[in-house]
Amino acid sequence: MKLQLFNRPLHELLQLVLTEQVTVPDMVSAFYARVNEREPQVQAWQYLVPLEDYLAEYESKRGFYQQSMLKGLPFAIKDVIDTANIPTAMGSLVHQDRVPSMDAACVTALKAAGGILMGKTVTTEFAYFQAGKTNNPHDYNRTPGGSSSGSAAAVADFMVPIALGTQTAASVIRPAAYCGCVGYVGSVNEYSLRNIQPLSQSLDSLGIITNHVVDTQLVRNVLIQRSPDAVPQNLQDAYRFAVFTGESLGEIEAAMSGKLQALVTVLQPQHLLLGFDWQGEMTELTQLHSSIMAYEVARNLAFEAQSEGLSAHLKALIQQGLALPYIEYQKCVRRVAEIRQQLLEWWDENKVDFVIAPAAPGVAPNKTHGTGVPFMSRAWQMLGFPTVTLPLYYHGKLPLGLQLIGRPQQDDALLQAAQHIKTCVQ
Amino acid sequence: MKLQLFNRPLHELLQLVLTEQVTVPDMVSAFYARVNEREPQVQAWQYLVPLEDYLAEYESKRGFYQQSMLKGLPFAIKDVIDTANIPTAMGSLVHQDRVPSMDAACVTALKAAGGILMGKTVTTEFAYFQAGKTNNPHDYNRTPGGSSSGSAAAVADFMVPIALGTQTAASVIRPAAYCGCVGYVGSVNEYSLRNIQPLSQSLDSLGIITNHVVDTQLVRNVLIQRSPDAVPQNLQDAYRFAVFTGESLGEIEAAMSGKLQALVTVLQPQHLLLGFDWQGEMTELTQLHSSIMAYEVARNLAFEAQSEGLSAHLKALIQQGLALPYIEYQKCVRRVAEIRQQLLEWWDENKVDFVIAPAAPGVAPNKTHGTGVPFMSRAWQMLGFPTVTLPLYYHGKLPLGLQLIGRPQQDDALLQAAQHIKTCVQ
Repeated sequence: MKLQLFNRPLHELLQLVLTEQVTVPDMVSAFYARVNEREPQVQAWQYLVPLEDYLAEYESKRGFYQQSMLKGLPFAIKDVIDTANIPTAMGSLVHQDRVPSMDAACVTALKAAGGILMGKTVTTEFAYFQAGKTNNPHDYNRTPGGSSSGSAAAVADFMVPIALGTQTAASVIRPAAYCGCVGYVGSVNEYSLRNIQPLSQSLDSLGIITNHVVDTQLVRNVLIQRSPDAVPQNLQDAYRFAVFTGESLGEIEAAMSGKLQALVTVLQPQHLLLGFDWQGEMTELTQLHSSIMAYEVARNLAFEAQSEGLSAHLKALIQQGLALPYIEYQKCVRRVAEIRQQLLEWWDENKVDFVIAPAAPGVAPNKTHGTGVPFMSRAWQMLGFPTVTLPLYYHGKLPLGLQLIGRPQQDDALLQAAQHIKTCVQ
Repeated sequence: MKLQLFNRPLHELLQLVLTEQVTVPDMVSAFYARVNEREPQVQAWQYLVPLEDYLAEYESKRGFYQQSMLKGLPFAIKDVIDTANIPTAMGSLVHQDRVPSMDAACVTALKAAGGILMGKTVTTEFAYFQAGKTNNPHDYNRTPGGSSSGSAAAVADFMVPIALGTQTAASVIRPAAYCGCVGYVGSVNEYSLRNIQPLSQSLDSLGIITNHVVDTQLVRNVLIQRSPDAVPQNLQDAYRFAVFTGESLGEIEAAMSGKLQALVTVLQPQHLLLGFDWQGEMTELTQLHSSIMAYEVARNLAFEAQSEGLSAHLKALIQQGLALPYIEYQKCVRRVAEIRQQLLEWWDENKVDFVIAPAAPGVAPNKTHGTGVPFMSRAWQMLGFPTVTLPLYYHGKLPLGLQLIGRPQQDDALLQAAQHIKTCVQ
């Protein structure tokens, strides 16, 4: 029986290569076959590297790839991240012919570790709200979420094992939740954002999208240029989880609340579960996020704001940002710092390890509702805390994602706890 | 008698245009004449827009420029900041043929306000230590300081009234001190850094270089897209200044210590002067800065690290950064946050308004010593506090710059106090 390849996580594929059970060209061809089968429905790719170019690259440096960590296996890159000599249009008509001369630092790191770029995945316009062409692989009438729409859909639908995305509001956590894969957003300042289209300097973060937390950790090690042996082991016998239902921020679907409760029930025997009584501050942070993002986007996209090719969504955001007085913006920045300090003190005093919350209000909505609403992520993103979706549950055929939130710069501990929770549920 | 134009501050030039005493083309021609006279010795420019191109741009949109805030007057841009269709080589052989297709956000803002790009000013390699060709306008055997070498030399030598620079360690404060002009570095996250070459995401800041604090405030308003009427007035009758001698960080020249004391004497009748007893933390922050910068540079410059064209200086920094384990880097980041919080609490408790300190250890050293040493800036830059040089004193023919340091996001108050101090001394 021929091995099914495309739907295996990256770390298993690497093992199959190491043990010479499958060749890299066969593996790559399996992914391209999957793309040929699925792309007409899912529409995850903005630009696909032709298979013959991919294989020619592999053959031209076969020795390097065989010795490398990633062995010449494929990765995908959200189209707001620059790729040398490959179009990078940022989901915008303004840049439809743009071809960067340089790779973003994260792309360089993946290539240096032996990954090969398979293509660019669909983003919303400048990673904001205007939806691209991508459909949710579980129901083509529904959104994959945004803005890392193509990255989440391509990985969740097994067209590529790993992809990079970016998050300014909810752009990794939400599409990963809607598509049913692992979306991880790094702490503030955790990764180089060089040659990634910026939206908001106080908020932008790099994200990694995979189907398995072990793969996320592997990509993270590549990005920070660290040996897997150097990863600190933070696994605890018993964690203290604070549970945030999200109901103070907006309407949460009953199915989502039910699954959050189901997870609490699973964890309760071994771990300590606490309440998270920061409803007022979470609401305030959500509003502060919206103001700070608008102010910064208006100044970051000054070049494009002069052109004709922007969507009404983005024009409205820029107008909102230009209308916000500098003094108000600075009040927002100071207030965030205050809340952040108070929350971190509470976190320490109560020996909380992580917060568990819905990753989105419910399942992926119909595409007529755009890419869904970001309110379950804005506050955490404003704080610069690392987050990861837990793609543990389904409602019918649709994924229902929860999320785990950690202390800033505790990204390794976060991923290890996410992996532990997965084993508790299964 | 013909008016001398080139050595006037921007706000005076604008007044001369408004009152129709001088035409913009005459004014621009005066700056180009100054460049023709001085550039052979000073070597501040990496790329100069031809005068005929400049004037053609002005004539083609004369109506726009006449209505605009900056009236078509010139500005200069450090060559690590992207300019559309104008070479941007970042001081590196690796990018010697690079021509961006887009302006950086700060360049867009200046152009939208009616400024016209006069050219690109010399930067050290990727804004790090490897010196460019520029000489100190006060003594051609001495360094202008780095990395914003050309921006400081061009403005101090009256070849252009305003320039933008960047600072990651001491790259605006130090050249402004050595050349004798006003160098201001914004608080962390204060300005859009879009399409500016990043070195270190925890440290990079935009800087404004002028010959007058009023001009600095004017450019700042343009960058944050604010009306001058909306600037809050923070001027106080009596300030509380803490004085940091810098002697715990390294050797301070006697002339510099003398001028610091001279300023204290001038301020004492009206203002309260306090000691600044944070010597241990300042030393620690200086070391933390060095580690965090090396770690982040190594990851940001991954693309260039693979090429042949890097200097030995930069290769050594990248090696230092790659050798620093992630866990050590994170310890540095956490320690900075701790010290920052303690220092801000002390600042509040003691009702300190600003810190006064040397901007550099002394006068500009001979070019055989590179671009000088950055130890008077690293700690403040690590904290993300705004700083501005006070070009108040000379030692012989060489400028001796002090600096004023403010609370984060209190940039307006900082500039207003700097202007006040200038009037106290004069």
